Amino acid sequence: MTSTQHPALLEELRRITGPAHVLCDGDLSAYTQDWRKRAQGKALAVVRPASVDEVAAIVKACAAAGVSLVPQGGNTGLAVGSVPDESGTQVVLSLQRMNAVRAMDAANLTITVEAGCILQSLQEAAEKAGFLFPLSLAAEGSCTIGGNLATNAGGTQVLRYGNARDLCLGLEVVTAQGEIWHGLSGLRKDNTGYDLRDLFVGSEGTLGIITAATLKLYPQPAARLTAWAAVPSMEAAVTLLGLAHRHLGAGLTGFEVMGQFALSLVNKHFPQLRVPFFEAVAASAGPPQARPAPSGGSEPHVVGSVGAPYCVLLENSDHESEAHAREQFERLLETALEDGCVSDAVVAENLAQAHQLWHIRESIPLAQAEEGLNIKHDISIAVSRIPEFVEATDALLRQNIAGVRLVNFGHLGDGNLHYNVQAPEGGDARAFLRDREEEVNTLVYDSVAHFDGSISAEHGVGSLKTDKLEIYKSPVALSMMHAIKGALDPLNIMNPGRIVKL
Amino acid sequence: MTSTQHPALLEELRRITGPAHVLCDGDLSAYTQDWRKRAQGKALAVVRPASVDEVAAIVKACAAAGVSLVPQGGNTGLAVGSVPDESGTQVVLSLQRMNAVRAMDAANLTITVEAGCILQSLQEAAEKAGFLFPLSLAAEGSCTIGGNLATNAGGTQVLRYGNARDLCLGLEVVTAQGEIWHGLSGLRKDNTGYDLRDLFVGSEGTLGIITAATLKLYPQPAARLTAWAAVPSMEAAVTLLGLAHRHLGAGLTGFEVMGQFALSLVNKHFPQLRVPFFEAVAASAGPPQARPAPSGGSEPHVVGSVGAPYCVLLENSDHESEAHAREQFERLLETALEDGCVSDAVVAENLAQAHQLWHIRESIPLAQAEEGLNIKHDISIAVSRIPEFVEATDALLRQNIAGVRLVNFGHLGDGNLHYNVQAPEGGDARAFLRDREEEVNTLVYDSVAHFDGSISAEHGVGSLKTDKLEIYKSPVALSMMHAIKGALDPLNIMNPGRIVKL
Repeated sequence: MTSTQHPALLEELRRITGPAHVLCDGDLSAYTQDWRKRAQGKALAVVRPASVDEVAAIVKACAAAGVSLVPQGGNTGLAVGSVPDESGTQVVLSLQRMNAVRAMDAANLTITVEAGCILQSLQEAAEKAGFLFPLSLAAEGSCTIGGNLATNAGGTQVLRYGNARDLCLGLEVVTAQGEIWHGLSGLRKDNTGYDLRDLFVGSEGTLGIITAATLKLYPQPAARLTAWAAVPSMEAAVTLLGLAHRHLGAGLTGFEVMGQFALSLVNKHFPQLRVPFFEAVAASAGPPQARPAPSGGSEPHVVGSVGAPYCVLLENSDHESEAHAREQFERLLETALEDGCVSDAVVAENLAQAHQLWHIRESIPLAQAEEGLNIKHDISIAVSRIPEFVEATDALLRQNIAGVRLVNFGHLGDGNLHYNVQAPEGGDARAFLRDREEEVNTLVYDSVAHFDGSISAEHGVGSLKTDKLEIYKSPVALSMMHAIKGALDPLNIMNPGRIVKL
Repeated sequence: MTSTQHPALLEELRRITGPAHVLCDGDLSAYTQDWRKRAQGKALAVVRPASVDEVAAIVKACAAAGVSLVPQGGNTGLAVGSVPDESGTQVVLSLQRMNAVRAMDAANLTITVEAGCILQSLQEAAEKAGFLFPLSLAAEGSCTIGGNLATNAGGTQVLRYGNARDLCLGLEVVTAQGEIWHGLSGLRKDNTGYDLRDLFVGSEGTLGIITAATLKLYPQPAARLTAWAAVPSMEAAVTLLGLAHRHLGAGLTGFEVMGQFALSLVNKHFPQLRVPFFEAVAASAGPPQARPAPSGGSEPHVVGSVGAPYCVLLENSDHESEAHAREQFERLLETALEDGCVSDAVVAENLAQAHQLWHIRESIPLAQAEEGLNIKHDISIAVSRIPEFVEATDALLRQNIAGVRLVNFGHLGDGNLHYNVQAPEGGDARAFLRDREEEVNTLVYDSVAHFDGSISAEHGVGSLKTDKLEIYKSPVALSMMHAIKGALDPLNIMNPGRIVKL
């Protein structure tokens, strides 16, 4: 039994939070298994503090006992960064009970919340006060803002509002020494020394524990319109992005690209979603038409009615009116049709249609899961180089792995692709992953490195990519990261083994 | 003679850059005296490398000799951070010769430039390619982008585009060990470890030397309109800011507040600038009307025709058209006049008028200089608390210092005030500064601390505010800063004594 280890520490933890909030027995898998079920760890205890003072006391107690801590929010991370290892010697520090909205400052356009606040609750609190908190991602119903900041989460609104980092004006942090840094500034300018805030943001709990944050709010846009455009190539998608920046300015809040094969999976597994430009395929009785595979991962037998290798979802947020947003959108799409970088387009007539289009985009991972096991990547490349990257990497994978199926989609506006690899049709997907995942990853990441990209655009490193980081990150950068980790957490008790190996 | 010290090092430096670029003799005050002539240091040598490899070699040579380095760009800093101390033992490393635009990537909306590139040259290179590089500040004709990043410069466009930090996507840095970190990513998302980029930005050359940067570009707006509004109080200015956010959205690119006394100095020393709403005063023959001083530092005898204690300069950047921008502005100002938060307003009819309005705003420091010596502050407070801060601090200063004159102006949209103190009229300004500067600073900074603000919003710490930082910065933050400095620059050779004292 884990609970027989470190009895004095457990006693101290019970004293700090009350015994009800130190969990040692029973099914703790909600805390010890990661979201994608890639790892099942074992905790000495799960501690659920209610205040920053309790967090500080817990860290001090663990430091004194030489026991390491794994901070955890909603445990929805995709890089296995917030569950304990298998040793049974780590304490999971769950921030879930610290979920208050501490303050709302309308004139300063800021909100201060505790780390355990669910992202969706935060969005709703902002909306209730007439503001927008723009961070938005698939897990928003269960992820917490603390986790979003610790992993510098991205999502669908980065193009306009930036990553989680860019939305944060201040932090409250418990250091590895159990000290409290009261850095909850609502200041937009503060040049009094090193940028500690941005150091903790994205550090995945390895330098300290974020317990609260002051975040930026924006006025709610008067209208949000969504369009769906078929484009003849990835180059055309990049051209469309440039046009959209010029026509919509800061109104451009979303620009998502989706490969034909990715959409065909949605069309296959969720036909009720009615993927635009797929109706003809769905209706056709005969076998689909075979034609050469266009660049970008579409399968020859699932080409849609317009034959476009990619579709793009665009969002225009307007501070004026829906009519103005529609006029702007129509002008953009007309120009794009004339230019030839769009072959067909629809603009959602109402909010329901807009939600439906986003729902299609968001259903790609689910459709992939329905299709079977697959290998996921979260990469970024300079936008200008993405067409060349995709063409080269598609070819490389096809050449090396017979029957490989490429599910390519993502936030093109940010240069971020979820360049996923589905096992060959009809084969044993489990065996494919077991035998080929490492090879696929190496092919993809080598190509990413060749194009000066990143192997983790928005999901972080966790424990999943530490080995890869040692290969693909510059030794100079790695050495600075080691120095910083050593300086701020000399006992190596804060989420050890994540991001950097010491 | 300094040049007789460290002959071997000087020989090595001459070998690295060529003897023409190691300056030891003659008038070096352009490198050794700061912009505001507050400090005159003495250099062992001024070295002017032409490449990152030369910078790396210089750092290695200095580290081996135990000689410290002072990186310098345009030497326009306001916090005495880029000139050597008086010991004559420090090497000034000037980045001026590294001023190339290395690459422009239109589809990725990025530009890569070397650290010594003058800000205005960078703006012009962007404009020539049809883009906007939005960082803009008074010294743009001589400051360099490396210095802007090292000090995380602010300026007049922060409201929409952020500080220098927010415009930077990647850095090339020479570390304190003389290693080169090639971090010139043009990526908008990259979550592979600690945020080294933001650690170097704002570190004022104390952790390493920024030699190049990849920066964000934006589409050029179709129109930029400027308005000038008289407001009845600082509270009203804050209300107007909220209205402007809602009406103009991301179009709101400037929101500057100017106290009546600040404007009266411009009116007095540069009457040809024709400060709006001052015409009546300028024309009036009799003595100006005396009335109680409104909150915010205006003098009773210099109240303008409309008697407004503050004026606001607003800028609206529109991606559509000038007509659209004007319509938006007029709708905003109508609402504000109805609401009562604006008492009078003008919108510039053309670019020349717009420049004239900005010129008035930018002439405040010059008018202050004409009026005589003064004490400058660069503070920030949450926007919502600024009215209360100004009222309380004005009262405090008036109570403690007879005849004090408050020149209050700044970037209200960012919560950043240049809350300056002019010596009493007719007195000996030099004696006032000598006898009262410390007292004035303490009164102002104590008040800033009381309102949870920052004592350096956009100018940095340099050597000017290190003592103050030890008083006003949290000990936990200071201790982390010390740990980071010690970890990345263990020999303490990078701009020692700046920001943190070791």
